[in-house]
This record gives sequence, structure tokens and C-alpha cells, in this order.
Amino acid sequence: MKYSFRSDYREIAHTQVLQALSAVGNAQFDGYGLDEFSIRAGEMVREKISAPSAGVHFVSGGTLANLTVISSALRPYEAVIAPESGHIFMHETGAIEATGHKVCTAKGENGKLCADDIESIVSFHSDEHMVKPRIVYISQSTETGNVYTKAELTGISECCRKNNLYLFLDGARLGAAVNSPACDLTYADIAALTDVFYIGGTKNGALFGEAIVICADELKENFRYHMKQKGALLAKGAAISVQFDAILRDGLYDELACHANRMAFKMAEGIEKAGYGFLFPVETNLIVPVLPCEALSGLRKLYGFYDWEIFEDTAAVRFVTSWATPESKVDEFLFDLAGLL
Amino acid sequence: MKYSFRSDYREIAHTQVLQALSAVGNAQFDGYGLDEFSIRAGEMVREKISAPSAGVHFVSGGTLANLTVISSALRPYEAVIAPESGHIFMHETGAIEATGHKVCTAKGENGKLCADDIESIVSFHSDEHMVKPRIVYISQSTETGNVYTKAELTGISECCRKNNLYLFLDGARLGAAVNSPACDLTYADIAALTDVFYIGGTKNGALFGEAIVICADELKENFRYHMKQKGALLAKGAAISVQFDAILRDGLYDELACHANRMAFKMAEGIEKAGYGFLFPVETNLIVPVLPCEALSGLRKLYGFYDWEIFEDTAAVRFVTSWATPESKVDEFLFDLAGLL
Amino acid sequence: MKYSFRSDYREIAHTQVLQALSAVGNAQFDGYGLDEFSIRAGEMVREKISAPSAGVHFVSGGTLANLTVISSALRPYEAVIAPESGHIFMHETGAIEATGHKVCTAKGENGKLCADDIESIVSFHSDEHMVKPRIVYISQSTETGNVYTKAELTGISECCRKNNLYLFLDGARLGAAVNSPACDLTYADIAALTDVFYIGGTKNGALFGEAIVICADELKENFRYHMKQKGALLAKGAAISVQFDAILRDGLYDELACHANRMAFKMAEGIEKAGYGFLFPVETNLIVPVLPCEALSGLRKLYGFYDWEIFEDTAAVRFVTSWATPESKVDEFLFDLAGLL
Amino acid sequence: MKYSFRSDYREIAHTQVLQALSAVGNAQFDGYGLDEFSIRAGEMVREKISAPSAGVHFVSGGTLANLTVISSALRPYEAVIAPESGHIFMHETGAIEATGHKVCTAKGENGKLCADDIESIVSFHSDEHMVKPRIVYISQSTETGNVYTKAELTGISECCRKNNLYLFLDGARLGAAVNSPACDLTYADIAALTDVFYIGGTKNGALFGEAIVICADELKENFRYHMKQKGALLAKGAAISVQFDAILRDGLYDELACHANRMAFKMAEGIEKAGYGFLFPVETNLIVPVLPCEALSGLRKLYGFYDWEIFEDTAAVRFVTSWATPESKVDEFLFDLAGLL
Repeated sequence: MKYSFRSDYREIAHTQVLQALSAVGNAQFDGYGLDEFSIRAGEMVREKISAPSAGVHFVSGGTLANLTVISSALRPYEAVIAPESGHIFMHETGAIEATGHKVCTAKGENGKLCADDIESIVSFHSDEHMVKPRIVYISQSTETGNVYTKAELTGISECCRKNNLYLFLDGARLGAAVNSPACDLTYADIAALTDVFYIGGTKNGALFGEAIVICADELKENFRYHMKQKGALLAKGAAISVQFDAILRDGLYDELACHANRMAFKMAEGIEKAGYGFLFPVETNLIVPVLPCEALSGLRKLYGFYDWEIFEDTAAVRFVTSWATPESKVDEFLFDLAGLL
Repeated sequence: MKYSFRSDYREIAHTQVLQALSAVGNAQFDGYGLDEFSIRAGEMVREKISAPSAGVHFVSGGTLANLTVISSALRPYEAVIAPESGHIFMHETGAIEATGHKVCTAKGENGKLCADDIESIVSFHSDEHMVKPRIVYISQSTETGNVYTKAELTGISECCRKNNLYLFLDGARLGAAVNSPACDLTYADIAALTDVFYIGGTKNGALFGEAIVICADELKENFRYHMKQKGALLAKGAAISVQFDAILRDGLYDELACHANRMAFKMAEGIEKAGYGFLFPVETNLIVPVLPCEALSGLRKLYGFYDWEIFEDTAAVRFVTSWATPESKVDEFLFDLAGLL
Repeated sequence: MKYSFRSDYREIAHTQVLQALSAVGNAQFDGYGLDEFSIRAGEMVREKISAPSAGVHFVSGGTLANLTVISSALRPYEAVIAPESGHIFMHETGAIEATGHKVCTAKGENGKLCADDIESIVSFHSDEHMVKPRIVYISQSTETGNVYTKAELTGISECCRKNNLYLFLDGARLGAAVNSPACDLTYADIAALTDVFYIGGTKNGALFGEAIVICADELKENFRYHMKQKGALLAKGAAISVQFDAILRDGLYDELACHANRMAFKMAEGIEKAGYGFLFPVETNLIVPVLPCEALSGLRKLYGFYDWEIFEDTAAVRFVTSWATPESKVDEFLFDLAGLL
Repeated sequence: MKYSFRSDYREIAHTQVLQALSAVGNAQFDGYGLDEFSIRAGEMVREKISAPSAGVHFVSGGTLANLTVISSALRPYEAVIAPESGHIFMHETGAIEATGHKVCTAKGENGKLCADDIESIVSFHSDEHMVKPRIVYISQSTETGNVYTKAELTGISECCRKNNLYLFLDGARLGAAVNSPACDLTYADIAALTDVFYIGGTKNGALFGEAIVICADELKENFRYHMKQKGALLAKGAAISVQFDAILRDGLYDELACHANRMAFKMAEGIEKAGYGFLFPVETNLIVPVLPCEALSGLRKLYGFYDWEIFEDTAAVRFVTSWATPESKVDEFLFDLAGLL
């Protein structure tokens, strides 16, 4: 196989991340995220998002972030609202339910919820015979590669505040979203409009790790207890924070995300020029073109990607580019595609 | 402070581990532990423990390993047996109970359970008004730095098989245990005598990560579902397995553990020569001497360590050496101690 | 208000039930369902359903029956399949999720699942990133008052066996279902086609109580442990079993269900004659006619019932008759309705 | 067997309870505890305990009361403190752990905790690596038949308030306790000194049912959601409240408890006169005499009771009298005992 476009977690880590880890040398540090690296990385996060009093915690992966945050925010009878395509509903093996909570869903569009979806779920859950929705889960960017605009996120945020709902934004691909031309939101906007979110490292240059950011005061209390109980409090917290120090330094995080987006846009442009369309708007590093099955069967021998939906003579397939995708591979792909169409 | 003997997770990682991560370069690999690095590291583990059909899974930390393994083995009404000092009972914020299961304890000695402890817990739980013990949790080495001998582990193993109990060994410090002069167990013995255990990386040279080894066939089935649900299935599984490849290669893992033990033994020897004793037998890299409070108040300014128990004029304190502890720091410590006594 | 048709749990209990409780007098009995009344009532259940080796357990209510049965059948990562209208999905405040399990739903028709619904949910859940469906939950009769026929239940049963799924039938209104002219299933058929079900007492003459019937051997083991853990093992088990003895004796259970059905059918006939239709086929004691809003606003002052769905000038409303509904109240209702139309 | 002294839940119900149920006739009532019977019984409870703003909820049994109350009061990482003999720790099959919470225990004396026990558990749980105790569970009377005095309960209550702990009193045998000569607490005292407790019906004349009383405002909110989720919200709430109306009327509840106590005291007096002692002070309807094994082997053929602890030639055995124990049976027992000694 020439190259895999299956996902953006298929390369180990950016050189600067590995160098930062090496640079620690034999320095000793405190355990469980109380070390100076973690304190400094926390400061860097707070600065990046212009939220000086936010709580920042580093965990090893997205599912662990999602289940720890959501279960920490809910009383037993409370539930989370998510789009049907939401990662917590579709691809986390019932991790939220395993903490005791129901996920209430709305269909959504382009992986996004809107304020109306939320309102109608809230008003449907009217009494003690039903769960009580208390937190809204959204992803930025979404499972379909799309982004919430400032107007959209503001609408959701207002709807949440009105309905006494926390707003949680899964930022596994936050870099790709914020650096999308379709997105007019800054990190500071996101911190201001949500109660809790995370900045994904795993899919944007880090070896592993996500930075959970808690904006709402009532969610901050005793969060480390929740982390420890769920196995999310790494003994060597520095192992993650040193990485965040590296990727947040000198704009690397956004640079890497821009690169990933640019590679996807170049692919998309080539596909469009060849006369083919997309299942969802092209906005970030995840694109879903609809291509002829015949061409796809040739492509499959050369490149890795996932099937999304099979139609009659065509199929929608998912391509994801990453911070590490070489432009030459994109060019090669487009050349090979042209030969197969 | 001159040096911290607080724990063995206070240095980032062995150089060879970081080099191995760097050596991956831009190679692409499959996600979720299905990559070639993970397959190879799994093979290396199986070879090391002489258990060719064991299941091997890499997770990010000890609490996550413990809660995933234990909850995967139990039906809702079943419980785990542990010594009172067991990490799952004392220092994991109710992580096991959060998965729905009671931890039944026996006092134990030197952090160890014996077959009689287990028998009496089993016979006490006689009907459906009580939980049903189904898995035994022990640590090797224990929270007091002690080790099970082959005779002891065999006794427990036979007791478990007789009573239809799984035996789970927490190996956060397995290297220190196996390389202890007090321990006549090989890795192969441990694999043969337990149903599931883990080989700790975090405390023995790795940046982070533990290798769960499943020996009993009925515990293997669908274990990846359990991992995913608990947030323990890292998207970049290779991030751990590449490290295990490095520490298991050329005997590095045992070499590092031996070093940690040797440093502790040197400290212990010096303390003993100075006329002081220990709360528990000195067997691995964790020692608990009983020293005069006056000397300790001086030591505290120079070295990091934990209080264990305060007596009248003396106190028991915990020192832990690591794979990275320089011998010079031990020498310095003994010199300073001598000056304070 | 003249009469409430809101539900079938709004009268205390059939006289024979209360007489049976009184007849116990000061007789002493064993605790926790191990008494002779419970043994005898268990026998009566087994006889009624022609399943001599079924396990029979009495619990106080439907939600407790549902959550105890479902959680007893599942490993942590396994899930239940239910129709969207299913009581466990809609009206039990996340009781199933609180035991750690996801409820996967299909839209269904008339509150019923079909084999195709199940197949497509099973095939959609393909790997360890998703829960694994393991039990199917259906209600007989359904939340819309409809019944599975023998052909339908056989189809589901075969589909379950093929896909390694347990089949659980919620029989809160089993009497109404089995005694429906639309239903060609006997109690014995239900026992033969399902793995576990319950016979509802609360809604059919008992003061309270449901009889859980376990047909599949592997679900029988240690079920009392599950019951005790969930608070479902009543100290005075006889308090329920004495009631089941009374309602199962001399055909009373079916007689009461037939009466409830007959009252509903009479209401339905009158409504139909007046020219109005129904949202779902009229098959049991729960009917959902669509009536003019103007007439409904008059009816509301005289009778209790629930709104189902509001249309333009009409609305669908739910009427439920019970074992205790006097025919005179139905006559009065139809007379009043005629006056309002 | 002549008579069983095994427990106080071995007779069906007091005649007045069954008559009250019969007196309901065909009256229709609202579902889920919103009916007039429940409202009135709630008022009667509030009046009895002189707590006009207490929340009152009726549930079917003790384990269900315990698990619903405790899980409703706790965040995921919080724990309950109980004596080792506490029913929730010993005889509820891990029901509390199944809701996700650890039970921290102190040895206690006569089944009782004291303020010091609580203080030392609280101070031991010092950081996020351990659970955070948040509610104290005690029983009145205890599993050994003993009672907290006003001074003792006041001490515990003050300790709880000081340490930000809720105080929950399991009153399965509250009648026996309050009516014990060793107890100087009134129902009003208990309401004033605890945050939540329950008044046991099952063991004191009711067919089944316990009345949960919530005194602390923050525990009242949304309690019905918790009840519904745990299967504790009976569709026919009136089935319990009608019973409480009957047993709380005209002092019947206390009268029945006094009778049970008197029967036990008579037994105890006879045993004492015969020269035998007790494992615990004789204070309520549960007594644990130490008798010669030889006499016991004869007694066992005539009377039902439980073994508590076997010594050399003697054994401690548990006798429980109930509201229904005929005095003639006690006389007969003492006569038979005399013949066997």
C-alpha cells in the first residue's frame, strides 16, 4: 500500500514532542500531574484560550476524557444529549452507559446538533419517569468533518444556559476545526461558550493525550477524584504535559492542524475538478467524497480509507489527512485517481 | 532538595524507550493496538513468560489495568478478595466499586494474602445475601515492598482453583519482585500460577504503560470490548507497545529492576549498619526503615520520602529507589544520614 | 370526575387477593421467598405455562423486574435491543443504563419489533468500538396496546437464537395480550419461545407483584443474588406469592384480563360507530382513538385519560380499562361522548 | 416445629393493615404515590416525627430503601461509613457497591458507631487517591439488637455536621428501638438529628413497606427520579401508604413494637434466671443469649433460631420476637428450655 488515509492517529508523534520528552532527561518530577511541567502546560493552555481561571487536566485519550467529564457532571438520573453520530453514542462501546447514564440523541446534520434539537429533547423529558438531560455533548470538528460556526455555537450555548444544561465540546480534532476556513470561532470563544471541552493531542502531533479544560466553576470541584477513580490520573502526568508544552509552543499545534486541513483541501479540490462531489461540506481534514465503485476498487489496492456508504455505482468513502501527511502522497493519490477515473 | 525517594515514577523514561519512539519516524501503523509494533511486543511478552497462547494488551496505567481486568472477570454480584493494604482497596478512589463490585479484605502480612485468608473469606460468604468472591487480587511486589515466594504463590493458586476463584496479580512492580533475592519465581511461574497479571512499565523504565497478560482462556474473550468501554484502548496502541519492545529487549527490563533493588539494598544496609531496623523485610526497591524523629526532621530538608507511621521518638518512613536512581545519591543520602544520627 | 381511564393500576386489588392475604392469619413462613406459599405459587406458574423446569421469582414491580432480568443476563459491554416505544427506553428513568448497559432501539410498528429490526441492529454492531447486543426486550401487549402473534413471536425467537440473543418479554399486561382475539399465543407458547418473561400482577388484580419466569437454563443460575443486590428480594416473599396463588387459581387471572379487554372493546365499538378511528389496531385494554378536540375538552371534565398526540382539530388520546372497570362506566362514557360529538 | 424465633418478618400482616387495604374497595387512586392515601400517610408520618417539612416516600423493602437513599446522596467518588456489622456491608449482596460506592467500615460495638470511629475514618481519607466519605449509615436498633441513646446519636450527629457528612439511620426496626427502655430518643429527636431515615413497616405489622423520611433539604430534590430509576417507585403507591395509615393510626405502630420487645424481655428474663448471659445488652426484640450446646441441640428440634457464634461447650444464638409472637409461645419456650438445661 502506498499510503493510508484511514485516520489521523497513525503516525507516532511530531519530532518536537519526542525531543521535548528526551529533554527532560533524568529530572525528577512530582507524580499525578502535580509537577512543574503540568503546571506550566496548564498555564499555556489557559493563555491560549484566554481563560485564566480554567481548570486544566491531561488524560491519555478521548474516550477516557469523555466518560470522566460526563460522569463527573451528572447525578445518577441525569442524561447527556448528543447527535446520533456522536462518538460517545456510536463508537465508545457504551462507555457513558457503563457509568450509569443514558445518551439521548437527535439526528443532527453534518454531525451537528442545533438549539432546536436540544429544546425538543428537553421538553420531551418532562417528569420523573424519564431521565433528566443535564449536559450536551458536541464535537468540533464533527464525525463528518464539519464545524460549528460562532453563530451556531452561540445558539447552542444560550439554549444550554436557558435550560440548565452544561455544554461539553469534544475537541479530539479541535485544531482542525479552529483552523478551518469555515470556522469563525477562536479558542477563547470556545472557552467562553462552553462549560468544559478538550483540546485533542493524539490526533494533532502528540504521542497521546488530551487536555481537558473546565470553564464552569461547579465542574472543577474534586475533578481529580473523578479522574483517579476512572483510571485517568496518570502517575507520570508529566508524560502528557511535556508533550502539550511542545505542541502549544510557537504555534505548532495550529500549524500542524493547518497542514492536515490543507492536505485534505488539496485532495478535495482534485476530486471536485474530476467532477465528483461530497457527502458533507469539505471543511477540515476529514472528507467524504462520492466516487465510482470501479475507480474505488483500484484505489483500494493503493491507499487506505474507510467505506462510508455504498450506493448503486458509486460509494461514499472517508479520507483523513494528518499533521504528518506528505504533500507528495496527496499528489500521488490525485494522479492515481485520475488514472482510474 | 537533593533527591526524592518518594516513588519510582518520578523520572520520565529510559533513553532506549525514547529512542525507540523516535525510531518509528513517520511510519504509519494501524490504530487501537492492531499494529505490527503491538503484535511484536505481544510476542516478546509471551516469549518472556513462556506462555505462547497468552493474551497481551497494553494499557496506560495501573488503575486502568486493575479496574478493566477485575470488572471484566465478574458478574454483577461477584466480588474481589484483596489484602487490606491492596492498592485497589486503599488508593484507587473506589475504582473497583465504581464498576459495581465489592472488595472483600483480609488483614494480610507484609502486604500479602495467604491461602487461609482466602479460604475464610470464601466460607464466610455463604448465601445470596452476601456477594460471591470470584477473583483474588494480589500485588507482586506488595505495597510494603515484599514478595510472594513460589511456595506462597502456589498455595494461593491451588486455593483459588479449588474455590473457583480467578487469581489476578498486580505487577506494577513485577520487575523488582522477580529480581528480588527473596523471590524464587520466574515470569513463567507467574504466568503458570495466575489467571491474569500485568507487567508494569510505568515504574520500570517506560514513559507509561502496563502489559496485561491473560492466561485463562475464559478471560480472553472480548477483552478488547472491556478495554474500549473503560477508555483503556489507546488509539495509538503503538505508543505503548514500541516502549515495551524497547524495555523487553536485551534484558533491559530486568536490568533496570535489579538496579532499583540494588540501590534500595545499599540504603538498607547503611541504615542497618547504623543500628536501625525496618517495619517489613527488605526485599525490593521499597523499604520502610524506622528512624529517630530528630534525624528525620533533618533528612526531610534534603530528601523526599513519605511518612508511614509515627511512633514515640521514631517514625517509619518509606523510601523508593528507581531504575534511574544514581548510586551517588544513595551514597550522599547515607553520608547525610550518618551526620544526622 | 366520573371515572378515570388513565391506567390499569388505579384500583387496589381484587377481593380474592385480599382474602387470600387475610387467610394466612398468623401462620409463620420462611423469609425471602423460600416459604411454602412461594413454592406453591411457583408450581402454579409452571403448570399454567407448561414449563416444569422454569425458574419462578416474585418481585414487587415492573421496573425492578426489567432491570434485574436485563442486568443479570449481560456482561458489561453487552446491550439490549428494544423498540423505541419500549418502557425500558422511555419510561424507566434510565434504569437499564444505571446498571451499565445501553439500550439499542429500532422504530418498530405498533410498539412491536420484527426480526428484520433485530438483524439490522446486530449487523450494525460489528466490532469492539460498539456495544454487543445480547438480549432483546419486547412487551406483550405493547405500549400501544398491540400484540405479537405466534408467527411474529416465532420469527423473533428464531432470529434471536440464530444471533445468540436472549429474548425477554415484558408481560406487565400479559393477561390482556394472551386473552386478546388478535393473539393466537398460549402461555406455553410464550414460555417455549422466550428465554425469560414476566407475568404481570400489578395491572391485573394483584395488590402488587410480578412473576418472573426464567426458561433458559443459563439465566437461572444465581438469579437470587441478582435480586438481592437490586433490592428485589422481598423479606416477606409470601406477600406476593399468596397473591399469585389467588389470581392464578380457577382462571381468575384470565377472567380479569378478559373483562378489561371487553370493556375496552365496548368503548372502541362505540367510538367507531360514532365515526372515529384509532391510531393503532384495537386489540387489548389500551386503545388510542382520534377524537375531535372540541369533544375532548368536554370529556376531560368528566373522565381521566392521557393525551397521546395533538393534530389540527383532533387529538389521539389513550384510554385504559382495567379488571375493575364497571361496564356502567363504559356505558356512561359512551353516552357522554355521544352528547359531545 | 413449635415456633420460629428466626425473625420478625415471618407473619403476613396485622389484621388492621389487611382491613385497611380491603376498605379501599374499588376506589380509584392516582399512580406512583401521588394519590390521596399517600399524601395522608405522608402527613401522618410528618406529624408523628414533628417534622412538618420532611419529605416522605414509601418503598417496598429495606435494601431498596438503603440503596436508593445512599446512591441519591453521593457523587461518584463519595463513600458511605458504616459499622462492620451494618446490613449494607454484610447482608445486601454488594447493593451499595453495585451503585458505584465503597462502604468504609469501623468495627463498632454492639453494632454501633461512635463519633470517634467516624472521625478516624474521615481523617484517614485525605486525598484524591481515596474515596471521600460523605454519608454515615447506622441502624436503630442495630444488628445486635441495641440502641443509640440520645447522647450517642447527638454525638454522631454533631460529628457528621462538623465533617460535612450526611447521617442516614436505617430504621427497619425503629419501633423496637424507640420503644426500648434503653432508648431515650423520640421520633422527633431522630428526625432532628439525622438527615434521612426510614420507618420500617415490614418488621412491624405491615405486609411490606418502609417509609423513607428526608429531613435535609438538599436530599429532597428529585428523589422521585432516584426512586423510579432503582425500581422503587411502585405503580400502586397506595398499596404501601394505606398500610402506613393503618399502622400509624391510634398508636398501633408503637403498641406492636412494645409487644415484640416485651416478648423478648420475658424470654431474656427466663434465660437470665436460669443462669445464662447474653452476648449483647438486652434492649429490644432481638436477643443473643449464650446457652449450653447440649440444651441447644434439644431446642433446635422445637424452635427456630439462628446460630451466631459457636464457643466450646456453649453457643450464642439469635432469637427475634415479633409483633405477632404469642406470649404463650414464649412461656412454652421457657418451659422447654428449663427442661433441657
